[in-house]
Formats: sequence, C-alpha cells, structure tokens
Amino acid sequence: MTHFQFELLHRSKKSRARVGRIHTPHGIIDTPNFVAVGTNGTVKALDNTMLHEIGLQLMFCNTYHLILQPGTKVVRDAGGLHEFINRKMPIITDSGGFQVFSLAYGSVADELKSRGTKKQGGSVLKITEDGVLFRSYRDGAKVLLTPESSIQAQKDLGADIIIPFDELPPYHISPEALTTSLARTHRWEQRSLEAHLKNPQKQAMYAVIHGGIDPNLRKTSCDFLTKLPFDGFAIGGSLGKNKDEMHTMLSYLMPQLPEEKPNHLLGIGDLESIDRSIPLGIDTFDSSYPTRAARHGILFTAKGDLNITKAENSNKYTPIEAKCECPTCKRFTLAYLHHLFKAKEMTCMSLATAHNLYFMIQLMQNYRSSILEDRV
Amino acid sequence: MTHFQFELLHRSKKSRARVGRIHTPHGIIDTPNFVAVGTNGTVKALDNTMLHEIGLQLMFCNTYHLILQPGTKVVRDAGGLHEFINRKMPIITDSGGFQVFSLAYGSVADELKSRGTKKQGGSVLKITEDGVLFRSYRDGAKVLLTPESSIQAQKDLGADIIIPFDELPPYHISPEALTTSLARTHRWEQRSLEAHLKNPQKQAMYAVIHGGIDPNLRKTSCDFLTKLPFDGFAIGGSLGKNKDEMHTMLSYLMPQLPEEKPNHLLGIGDLESIDRSIPLGIDTFDSSYPTRAARHGILFTAKGDLNITKAENSNKYTPIEAKCECPTCKRFTLAYLHHLFKAKEMTCMSLATAHNLYFMIQLMQNYRSSILEDRV
Repeated sequence: MTHFQFELLHRSKKSRARVGRIHTPHGIIDTPNFVAVGTNGTVKALDNTMLHEIGLQLMFCNTYHLILQPGTKVVRDAGGLHEFINRKMPIITDSGGFQVFSLAYGSVADELKSRGTKKQGGSVLKITEDGVLFRSYRDGAKVLLTPESSIQAQKDLGADIIIPFDELPPYHISPEALTTSLARTHRWEQRSLEAHLKNPQKQAMYAVIHGGIDPNLRKTSCDFLTKLPFDGFAIGGSLGKNKDEMHTMLSYLMPQLPEEKPNHLLGIGDLESIDRSIPLGIDTFDSSYPTRAARHGILFTAKGDLNITKAENSNKYTPIEAKCECPTCKRFTLAYLHHLFKAKEMTCMSLATAHNLYFMIQLMQNYRSSILEDRV
Repeated sequence: MTHFQFELLHRSKKSRARVGRIHTPHGIIDTPNFVAVGTNGTVKALDNTMLHEIGLQLMFCNTYHLILQPGTKVVRDAGGLHEFINRKMPIITDSGGFQVFSLAYGSVADELKSRGTKKQGGSVLKITEDGVLFRSYRDGAKVLLTPESSIQAQKDLGADIIIPFDELPPYHISPEALTTSLARTHRWEQRSLEAHLKNPQKQAMYAVIHGGIDPNLRKTSCDFLTKLPFDGFAIGGSLGKNKDEMHTMLSYLMPQLPEEKPNHLLGIGDLESIDRSIPLGIDTFDSSYPTRAARHGILFTAKGDLNITKAENSNKYTPIEAKCECPTCKRFTLAYLHHLFKAKEMTCMSLATAHNLYFMIQLMQNYRSSILEDRV
C-alpha cells in the first residue's frame, strides 16, 4: 500500500452514494465524512486532545493564515503541523488562494448582496500570471503567493492532503472572464502539481475543479484536471446562488469525476447540503458552520437546531440529547449550558463546539451505515 | 466522624505553618491549599471535568452572581450546585456581601488610587440594619440581601462551606465608622449563623474576621466570633495597603484563632502573599489571579512568570516547564501556545488556565511536604 490510497468499500444501489476509506500516513478517514475547520491549527474553543477524543478524522487548516501567523518556518522547524499542533490524525491544508481572492473580491455572500457592485479591494496589490501579491494584515509586509510558494508553504506544513493554488473568480463575472480565469487556474494547478511531484513528501494532492456556474466550463475543468495525476478532486468556486442550483450542478459534475479517487466539496457543510450531496457521491465536506453555530449557542440535535440561549432551557436538567455520547452530553445539562451562555462564560463555547462536532461525526457514521444498507 | 472535620496532621517546628485535612461531604481538602475561583459555577475557560483531572480540591463560587444568574431556585431544583455544575469535589460559596459592598464603595484598589474620594455608587439603593437593597445589573430588579436571605441562597446552592453575610467597609473609613461597621457585621454574622443552624444541611460555616486595619478591632472580632460555634474562620476586609502591612496584621491576628479549626484568607492568592502567609498558619487561599493571569498570557513557572506573548517564545518547541505534568505541558509547546495567543484563539486561554491552576496545586503540595519536614 502506498502512503495514500482510496479504498471504495460500497456503492449504494439506490444512488451514487458510496462508502470508502482514505488511507493516509496519519491513519484512516472513513467516507463520507465531515472535516472540521481549524484555521489556525486549532478548532476554535477546543484543544486538539478533545478532537482526538471525539474521533474527528480529518481537520482542515488554512495555509493563508498559517503563512501570516506563525509563519511556515516555525511550523516546519517544529517538525510539521502534526507535531506543532500535536495532532496524530490526518490534516488537509488549502492553498491560500481562496482567502487571497476573497480579500480581492469579497465573499460570494457579500457579492450577492451588493450585486457585484461592491468590491472589497482589501489588501491585494497585484494579480499576475505569476501569482498574487498582497499585504499581510498582521504586519503590513508584502507577500507573494504563487503556485510554487503555496506548495512550498504546504510542504513546510506537511499536511496529509494538500491543494493546488487556484483562482477564486467572483460570482458576478462575465463568461469571457470566467473562461480566462479557468484557463489560468488550470495553469496554476498544473504548476502546483509539478512543484508537488518534485518532492511528494508522502503528501497527496487534490485538484480543485472550477468553472463557476457554467456547466460547460465545469466539464472542461473535469476533463483537464482528471487527466493529471492528482490523488483526488475537490470542488471549488461558486456552484450557484442557492442549494437547488448547487444540486443541479453537482448532479451534472459528479459523474465526470473518476470513481476510484476520493473527492471533497469545499466549504459546504450545512445539514441540508450534506443530505442532498451524499447521494451524488461526495466523500468529504468541510465547513466552519457547526463550530461557529456552537459559539453562537446553536446546538445540533436529531430534532433540529436548539438555541441554548432561549429561556425555556433555563430549567431543563437533561443533556442536549438523551442518547448523545459526546463529552458535553455525558456531563452537563441544558440548564447549565444555558446558564453559562447567559453568564457569558467562554466554557460554554467549548462545550457547545464539542457537541456539534460530535453530532457531525455521528451523522456521517449514520450516513455510512445507511449507504452500506443501500438506504441512501 | 461528622460531616465536617478538620484534622491537624502536623505543626511545623519552624513556624506556625501546619498541615491538615478538611473532611467534607464531597471529600478531602488537604491544607494548606489553593482555592480556584469559579464565580458563575465554572472556572473561566475551563470545564469542571478538567478541574477534576488536575485535582483541584476546593472551588469558590460567588453567591451574588449566582443569585442574579441563573437564580438559586434553578440551582436548588437541579439538586444543588454540585449537581448543577457537575462537580464531585468540595465547593465553598461566599455570602454576596463582598460584591454588594464593592458596588457601593468600589474595590480597595480603586479606592486607594482615588484616595477614597471616588465612590462607585453602583446599584446599591439602601443599606440598613436589615441588609442591603440593590438593583440587579442583569434585569434591573430590586434585590434585598440580608443575613437570612444570603444564608437561604447558600442553602439552595448547597456548598460544603458557606460564609455569613458581612459588611465590607471601605478602606478609607473613620475609626468610629469602622467600629460601627464591625458591630453590625458581628450582628449580621450571628444572624447568619442562627439561620444556618436551623437547617445545617451538612454544610459548614466559616465566620469572617473583620476590623480592617485596626489591630484592636481585629482582636475584638476574633474574641467575638471565636466564641460562636463556627466551623472555621475566614479573614476578610482590608489588611493594609501593601504586603508588609498585611503580614504584620496576620502575624498579630493568626495566634488569636483556635488552632483546632481551619482558616481561610479571602481573596489573596499571589505567590508572595502565599509564601509569607503559610508560615503564619493560613490553611487555604482563594484568588482569581492565577486564572486571570493565564487569560492574559502570564504563565507560572518555578523560575517566575513567563509572558507567552513575547516573541522569544515563537520557536521554543518545549513545554512551559519540562517536568510539569499538567495537561498543557504534556501535550503542547511554548511555540504553539505563543501562536495561539497571537492568533487570538480562545483555546490558548483554556490551556494556560489549566497550567496555572495545576502549578498552584503542585505549589501547595510542595508547601505541605516542606511543612511536614519542618522546612517552612
């Protein structure tokens, strides 16, 4: 077995859903699975010991943030990200492209609100064929991010799965500009792959399929990238302005990806999207939503979201969910969690985050069971 | 053995320092010991499971805060504070007097700065022989705190050790006013004791010795309170404007307390004060300093305070202290903690707090060993 391998265990008879196992140098990722976001090398409000305890198999760290703080040299000198943050299980890093272009164009959500008229010029100084020059929000220093420098940064970080440098085009973009952007993204991804293959370091690289909301360009992207020796495929960029459009696009796109390689849906992790995308064959999802929701007092349950700040929870002496085996539900009641939120104790954020992540992990376990029984 | 008992194990041959064991319905408190402050039923940035893991034997919760949020009825209906916050080990609550009078007079530190001219009128509406009427900072409701209502609140909370309602006189007070205040405090403490003894509920009550910076009044207070059937003695109020004055006062005061009962120094827990007070026979200390310092990046070590935010820690791949067995030192490096602080991740506050509390617990263990060997 090589350092990275995708084992396809079962294809559902009912849909394109599948159950698999990704083998990495830091252990197995069962798929479908949820990937928690730990931007700065920690999931907000938790420590990495707790992630291990609740069984989080894959953690997503952001190269852009880690380049700026603490700097990839500090991480490399520690022996890589696993050593630096003391995580024994798999890690995936992105390229930094998403954050850099979000600075330039604003997020899709911002844009949709302003209909593309508002530009957050942010701190991007120049975008050329070579890469992107931007100003660090930390110390004002100029930083050049190119396919090669992004991959070097990701080599220093040493995650199990890395991502090529890509352009995140704005949602409001002309068809011509989108075509131009896609072509450059492909050149950047190819340069990234070449940089990676010079020194694979037991890392796997997932391509990022782009093409925005144009199905033809999505097909072009699949055709181009699936011919290159990537280890898996991530789906990036805008997939539409709502969940229906995303579903339509993914229904069209997923059959164009090779079945024998794992795939990942970037930045999408709300429950409805997961439920609609698993039958299309998505293997992994990352999202900061479950952890961010937790910090705002939104707790996930089988019966839907529970807002812990509501007065009705003040005297409920039962766990969030009776059968939940998470560290929070095993130890604390709704009444106590409600009290901690009302008293503005940050402890509540840790307890809520642990619960929501555990919920996501169990949810994905349940999907795997359902797929194995061809019920999804 | 009754529900509460102080076992004096050893008196130092070198000083008045002593080693003991307080037996409570929720287990033993070895003395001398440090008491962590968990105002709202949690130590800030930690959960109560972690307190158990690091072996914190006594936790201090604030009745004033718990009356206002979540209200003592919620805690009583949960089965008491231990059940509500899921703590198996001993808890001490105060009477609320300190907070209420701090609102009226400001803290001693505020006062010393303003030389008593600045009054934080706060939300205290009326102080009478009956008690104190104040306005809740949470919902604006008027709340009357009396000896009887404070004790009832502490009965609802159900801590192992409770404190009678007392007046915290301002530091800048005339001798006559201090005498008047002390007399009222004694009446209030006696009323508190009577309320307590009607329904002891397996709780112990420590008197609070007052008298401010007047040695004669301190003696009066010891004489009066030690004749009443309190289970132990706390030392409250201002002990002077610096550590030398406090040391002088405690040297005079401590021999006036009965040796066979435990004592507690209220709200003092810096390392120098602990070091100077243990030889005077202090058994327990509470302070929010170690946890507050942690949240500001000040980490305790045998070599003194370490400021984790300093750049020099950015590439130190060693624990805070090589031999420390705390959950933080066993798992994470200075470089990672520095990074988390710089990245403003709240995880760093939890990790730092766990270390500082563990440090305090070990420190007190070391004092006990030293006393047993007559080295302190």
